[in-house]
Amino acid sequence: MSLTAPATHAIDRATCEALDAADPLAGFRERFDLPEGVVYLDGNSLGALPRATAGHVQRVIAEEWGTGLIRSWNDAGWFTKPQALGDRIAPLIGAAAGEVVLGDSTSASLFQVAVAAARLRPERRVIVSERGNFPTDLYVLEAVQELAGGAAPLERRLIDDDGPGLDEVLGDDVAVVVLTHVNYRTGRMYDLADVTRRVHEAGAIMVWDLCHSVGAVPVDLNAAGADFAFGCTYKYLNGGPGSPSFIWVAERHQSAARPAITGWHGHADPFSFDVGYAPAPGVTRFRVGTPQLLSVAALEASLDLWEDVDLAQLREKSLRLTELFISLVDARLAAWGVEVVTPRQSARRGSQVSIRTDRADGYAVVQALIERGVIGDYRAPDLMRFGFTPLYVTHADVWDAVAVLEDVLATEVWREPRFARRGAVT
Amino acid sequence: MSLTAPATHAIDRATCEALDAADPLAGFRERFDLPEGVVYLDGNSLGALPRATAGHVQRVIAEEWGTGLIRSWNDAGWFTKPQALGDRIAPLIGAAAGEVVLGDSTSASLFQVAVAAARLRPERRVIVSERGNFPTDLYVLEAVQELAGGAAPLERRLIDDDGPGLDEVLGDDVAVVVLTHVNYRTGRMYDLADVTRRVHEAGAIMVWDLCHSVGAVPVDLNAAGADFAFGCTYKYLNGGPGSPSFIWVAERHQSAARPAITGWHGHADPFSFDVGYAPAPGVTRFRVGTPQLLSVAALEASLDLWEDVDLAQLREKSLRLTELFISLVDARLAAWGVEVVTPRQSARRGSQVSIRTDRADGYAVVQALIERGVIGDYRAPDLMRFGFTPLYVTHADVWDAVAVLEDVLATEVWREPRFARRGAVT
Repeated sequence: MSLTAPATHAIDRATCEALDAADPLAGFRERFDLPEGVVYLDGNSLGALPRATAGHVQRVIAEEWGTGLIRSWNDAGWFTKPQALGDRIAPLIGAAAGEVVLGDSTSASLFQVAVAAARLRPERRVIVSERGNFPTDLYVLEAVQELAGGAAPLERRLIDDDGPGLDEVLGDDVAVVVLTHVNYRTGRMYDLADVTRRVHEAGAIMVWDLCHSVGAVPVDLNAAGADFAFGCTYKYLNGGPGSPSFIWVAERHQSAARPAITGWHGHADPFSFDVGYAPAPGVTRFRVGTPQLLSVAALEASLDLWEDVDLAQLREKSLRLTELFISLVDARLAAWGVEVVTPRQSARRGSQVSIRTDRADGYAVVQALIERGVIGDYRAPDLMRFGFTPLYVTHADVWDAVAVLEDVLATEVWREPRFARRGAVT
Repeated sequence: MSLTAPATHAIDRATCEALDAADPLAGFRERFDLPEGVVYLDGNSLGALPRATAGHVQRVIAEEWGTGLIRSWNDAGWFTKPQALGDRIAPLIGAAAGEVVLGDSTSASLFQVAVAAARLRPERRVIVSERGNFPTDLYVLEAVQELAGGAAPLERRLIDDDGPGLDEVLGDDVAVVVLTHVNYRTGRMYDLADVTRRVHEAGAIMVWDLCHSVGAVPVDLNAAGADFAFGCTYKYLNGGPGSPSFIWVAERHQSAARPAITGWHGHADPFSFDVGYAPAPGVTRFRVGTPQLLSVAALEASLDLWEDVDLAQLREKSLRLTELFISLVDARLAAWGVEVVTPRQSARRGSQVSIRTDRADGYAVVQALIERGVIGDYRAPDLMRFGFTPLYVTHADVWDAVAVLEDVLATEVWREPRFARRGAVT
């Protein structure tokens, strides 16, 4: 995708407003409830509230739960929601109907699929991941190593920006590779098809973490021939705090795959109440227990909105926003030593930009920004992280964010004690 | 507990109304939104909607998510909700503060604790459960057997009403015993302290499933000296469809216990983003990933209500309701061959009563009851199951339910084709 962003020196707020006026996705902003005076650049951590969500959840509470009571398991389709909503997530990740199902927390779903993946290569003893992966992926893989290893734990091999690369760690002892498509810290994006191909050439199984991809960048799992994937729905999909994860299993693996946790919602006939577990056909076997249906309901409302999104337009706007931010940072913040950590090559960039500087405490800077209504976040040891969610972030928002950031740096307001480190924001 | 239920021949609807008028818990019914014309006897499957829930969830959506956005992880206490709500469940199960935490689905939490339990007895190779346990417990234990077994799967040994009893299967090879305190089908309740003692005498670890106990019957885990427990919050606790499970770990095990899934919310310092997993102190290490906070919010509203409940009064009313139901079934339904499956001895009975008859199709009978506004459920092959939730079921409800049941059996309306088996209700 080639974009001709305006030359930096020509950008002013009016330019940004003109870009907003021409934005084919501009109408989506009205479908979110955003607080007045806030520039929200943390939708990569928790997506904003779709306007339709509250009413939908309220209806589920009052009508489906309050009035329907137990009957809603059948009458309101509660029992099959994880498959039904999975089918609605599928087009966002290049999956087919019947390949996606909702899970518990993202960490639990990683466990569920990584064990299944390792079981497809029982003779191999190595799991590959990345030192810079989101930590829970590595933590959960420790559990997978120990529990799926049989007589001895599986070995872990980590690729590293400063160490071995993927091709150096791949070998005929590698069972599974688990990588996050878009890195949570840097926003760097892997070439999903290319990495999958190299992993397959080594005879290993490819598991993709799509937490920072779904609803943010184009993903085509089936075109890439990937094996398993999982992701969260509370970032770019705007499903609400802690909304359920999803699991994707390529159709060709579904009949052989054995999930880690064999719960009754993944049983072939859950209401037969048989003593023995028999896996359901297809991806349904990856379900575990009763879904948390109020969180599912909020996700459902947000997926209604996604029905109307043109994914090519989404990516085009995402790149326009991130390039605009990068241009403005380069032009206006270099004086404070601010550098862009996120790849400048658009094909390698997700929908976020991370920056750093040696001349200011990034934590305090982010707190000062938040006080002024520009919400990004901080990731230790030194990254200021800004997510650009094309459905509700405007070009003018980007302009305003950089202007506030420049002021925070120029005035050194971030040095004030109230911005000093105390807690942390997820 | 000794109850003097009125002699059967003396009971009429006026007697029931008098009992309701004298009921110290009667005021709680007004704190639930129950549909008009419904006698709800399925709160043992899905609890009714507390009147305060909708407003609380709405506030969490609008204010904490919509306005607070990412800041609510700290400002609204989202990150510590699983511990905070665990501390509020603790008094309902004889646990101390710091011993209970919310989990994912109940099945996932069983996996989380059963693996930890097995790890405390690595030299032992047997897991004991019960053939009549809720099936997902057995299904999940299959996963535990396979994954926690190391070189070879752990062995399973099942006690059975028609087969070996607990003392016959216990031995020095038993690592863990997983039993459900109140049986989902029959309502039979174990003596929690006595069973725990026998399991400990055999040197094994005791894991209790409290799904049908919490909010229904007295539970005192610490008095019994039990080891681990888990349960669901969407039955008697009224937390809403699929509301999160809870996990209890006895304080004495917390520093040694290693949960199955090592996710970042169970990490000692989740925001350090360390590469290696280090367990949080206490029961917090049993957390996995991001909690589904809208479902958590609904649970929170229901726990407000539990603050006001006298648990001794709750048990007393529960026994009064179930004894009344049993008396009326005996007196009025024996003519249709209806027998009570649930123990008549109050100390062995939870807060439900299951009945059966050879002379009618229980499935069709339950459907006919539901059509007439009496909601119970059916459990294959032949049980009609009725839950008595003392906070909103009245003595008059019990009278009306038996009257409708008598009519359904007397008129044989259940034979009408619309009541024939098609789906199933969870």
